[in-house]
Amino acid sequence: MAKKREKVDKLTTDAYKGVRDFYPEEQAFLNYLFATMRGVAKHFGYEEYHASILEPAELYKAKGAENEEIVREQTYTFIDRGGREVTLRPEMTPTLARMVARKRREMGFPLRWYSIPNVFRYERPQRGRLREHWQFNADIFGSPSPVADAEIMLLAHSLMRAFGATDEDFIIKLGSRNFLDSIVEELDLSPQHAKALRHLLDRKNKITRQEFTREVEELGIAVETLSPKKVPSDVAEILALLKYLGVSNAQFDPAIVRGFDYYSGVVFEVFDTHPENRRAMFGGGRYDNLTALFDAEELPAVGFAAGDVTFKDFLSVRGLLPEYLPNAKVYIAIARADFASEAMRLAGELRKNNVSTAVDFGDKKLSEQIKAAVRHGIPYLIVFGEDELVSQSLRVKDLASGKETVLARGELSSFFTTL
Amino acid sequence: MAKKREKVDKLTTDAYKGVRDFYPEEQAFLNYLFATMRGVAKHFGYEEYHASILEPAELYKAKGAENEEIVREQTYTFIDRGGREVTLRPEMTPTLARMVARKRREMGFPLRWYSIPNVFRYERPQRGRLREHWQFNADIFGSPSPVADAEIMLLAHSLMRAFGATDEDFIIKLGSRNFLDSIVEELDLSPQHAKALRHLLDRKNKITRQEFTREVEELGIAVETLSPKKVPSDVAEILALLKYLGVSNAQFDPAIVRGFDYYSGVVFEVFDTHPENRRAMFGGGRYDNLTALFDAEELPAVGFAAGDVTFKDFLSVRGLLPEYLPNAKVYIAIARADFASEAMRLAGELRKNNVSTAVDFGDKKLSEQIKAAVRHGIPYLIVFGEDELVSQSLRVKDLASGKETVLARGELSSFFTTL
Repeated sequence: MAKKREKVDKLTTDAYKGVRDFYPEEQAFLNYLFATMRGVAKHFGYEEYHASILEPAELYKAKGAENEEIVREQTYTFIDRGGREVTLRPEMTPTLARMVARKRREMGFPLRWYSIPNVFRYERPQRGRLREHWQFNADIFGSPSPVADAEIMLLAHSLMRAFGATDEDFIIKLGSRNFLDSIVEELDLSPQHAKALRHLLDRKNKITRQEFTREVEELGIAVETLSPKKVPSDVAEILALLKYLGVSNAQFDPAIVRGFDYYSGVVFEVFDTHPENRRAMFGGGRYDNLTALFDAEELPAVGFAAGDVTFKDFLSVRGLLPEYLPNAKVYIAIARADFASEAMRLAGELRKNNVSTAVDFGDKKLSEQIKAAVRHGIPYLIVFGEDELVSQSLRVKDLASGKETVLARGELSSFFTTL
Repeated sequence: MAKKREKVDKLTTDAYKGVRDFYPEEQAFLNYLFATMRGVAKHFGYEEYHASILEPAELYKAKGAENEEIVREQTYTFIDRGGREVTLRPEMTPTLARMVARKRREMGFPLRWYSIPNVFRYERPQRGRLREHWQFNADIFGSPSPVADAEIMLLAHSLMRAFGATDEDFIIKLGSRNFLDSIVEELDLSPQHAKALRHLLDRKNKITRQEFTREVEELGIAVETLSPKKVPSDVAEILALLKYLGVSNAQFDPAIVRGFDYYSGVVFEVFDTHPENRRAMFGGGRYDNLTALFDAEELPAVGFAAGDVTFKDFLSVRGLLPEYLPNAKVYIAIARADFASEAMRLAGELRKNNVSTAVDFGDKKLSEQIKAAVRHGIPYLIVFGEDELVSQSLRVKDLASGKETVLARGELSSFFTTL
């Protein structure tokens, strides 16, 4: 009986505004990215954690009035059917602090944790920015030591190197919240002026030196006060440690202040040095007070987060993107549809010996089947026909070179595994 | 300058209702689950795809009135700031159909794809059911052949075997939408009776045989019509193929009908046979019409989806859960805080030789540092002190056995890599 179907308008195949579909080649890149991140994190003994993207909205409101505005205007926040206000996490750090605060009494410190969550921001569509991206997060909880800050930056450095970058390809710029606070205190700046100074520093690398000098002086501050030559002591100590550990591409930059309210010490950003992509890729820093949102005790913490898109841009301009390889090594095409079950058996023998194999079901003629194998980028083809069924001898074709090799069925697996 | 912080109520550390936090041991299990799934999918030549959890709500409404109710009552659906109605995907198949329909002209068929998405359902909290879980999806597009159905079931079978299950641990039960339709047609059942019959079949394995017989007869149907001995021809053909391919634990069960509207042919479910966990674990089937929602042409498809929770239960009752191993192999504790940078250098040497190493920053006394290493479950400990700095000879302690080995610094990496 044919099913009745209501006449409906055809649906669009577009993804939701501002998010991405990951077709196999794009997903293969993400998998490469994640595997490299996991490899580096594991080397440093970081444990992986994860959480739902759904969080109570209060988690993001608690950090003060400025954040409430962000929750209202820049996050996905909605009321669920139970009347709870829910937010799709815009970043991982509050979730991390919540999870650590929850089980801190059972944990060993220093705690080294990493995660690769997707995070959501409500961005205006016209800006062309993504509403969802993936982000590597690495954090240390429980140590106030500058060595912990140095390790986090060393981890960021190792991550860049693991992707094939040299020390000339990027630079780690360190700033200090304490440095900014000390200027504010020393010059007795009003809260408005202090805020203006922070915003001005944040814009420093985007405006000309003349503009910067003029605006600094408008705030009644001598521009020398903000010279990168006057390295604050907390930054100097970490720079010395990094140098001792072999990191040569780190330096002080007073313009590094970072956006989030919760930073409380040294902060840093990794910059791409490529002329076509000269910009901050990612960053982080010390935040010692965040767990205090949940209970009385504060727990020192330092960490960073790095997104998938900036990495792709970085690797792309340098030709460091990996080549896409399909999961199947061998494709078995069949001369007649009723050879499918025998071809499936042959595939089973190959799989048993760890050779990834896909089979055609014979719905189309042979030339179309071979075209499908080529479209998928599968390197080897076997055509299964009358002769193959009888003789138990098979012809393997290298689809790139066209070269053919005739093999007995029993020799087939070892041919592929010893390639 | 100390930062001012508004006095705020302390936040709860609870996760949002119905979702889970994944602490390292739980995440390690997920990683094992996903790696095993990926391994099997790769063996069969399936390519991985992915998409955002955000989808236009229309994607789930289009399948008819019944689905509109599901969208309204059982999904997370909200209006974004641009006035778009958005749904957190409750399943992956509509997204998959959308992605395939979008690029079908560039694709080679048969197309074998898999994904491991998280999916969301709005469940009433009192039922204690999860609102988010992870789900392995595998699908073939472009073949109407029963061999494709057989391959999907063989893939499900291989997945179970890859987790360590034997053929006695589970059973694959096949049903048929055509079989159900033919009964409805033959007996000329009204739409109400047809629906009642489907719901009754769906409940068959949850009620007694007497209850089932009575309710079938109330619908005016002889219970023999639904006998598992009358195997429909489409099911019989697939069962014969599976047998030929070495799958011995598959059988016909007229009660297998599956919930979703889009199924159009043979459907199946994998059942756990363990007395404490006897229930359907996961399932799938043929759905040949779904891409027609997007454009005129229909594309035959067959697939299945399997969730993380049922797998965990299955492995748990059989003692098949893998042991948790921390990412760090070696922990370096330090006798004095100012040895931290030297300990970091030693860790760098070990990491260069692929030995995962974590370092203590020396914020606490030595005995506390060693306790932290034990809490993390790290197998080896090195205490770095005055002697180690001078002599360049190091004592490695196996924390499980207590056994100590003294090694020259240069021998250290090879000690761990040859373990």
